[in-house]
Amino acid sequence: MQARVHVSLKPSVLDPQGKTICSALNELGHRAIQDVRQGKYFEIQIADGVSEEEARALLETVAHEVLANPVIEEYRVDLTTGEKS
Amino acid sequence: MQARVHVSLKPSVLDPQGKTICSALNELGHRAIQDVRQGKYFEIQIADGVSEEEARALLETVAHEVLANPVIEEYRVDLTTGEKS
Repeated sequence: MQARVHVSLKPSVLDPQGKTICSALNELGHRAIQDVRQGKYFEIQIADGVSEEEARALLETVAHEVLANPVIEEYRVDLTTGEKS
Repeated sequence: MQARVHVSLKPSVLDPQGKTICSALNELGHRAIQDVRQGKYFEIQIADGVSEEEARALLETVAHEVLANPVIEEYRVDLTTGEKS
């Protein structure tokens, strides 16, 4: 089973890296771009034989305890059962 | 208009960071996790009044020239018109 975990800064947390990218793009002439926020994502391969509920519980644990810092970041878990894109 | 650009290493390129995360998770007891690959993503706010085609063309340019390194990375552009998630 394949899963994706997206981790991004909470909306209330400043993202200087995103702001820098946005300024750079504006200076390069791409003025239609008004805001950029950067996040990270993880493509995770889960062993066959793990049920969808188990996988979801596992990913919630992993995202909360390891992949994201819940003080300043939020995360989203997407399971893409059967599909391997 | 809101857009997301995902940038990840091409499948043929080694991802030592992802491998390290995978090993760490396995050592923490999460043995159902078989592989991890890390990527980055950008949430981009595009000015109102830009058409969907213009936005898509702009994002393709920006992703190809600035956000990704096309030698080792691939990217995906998703437009989420109207929705601001």
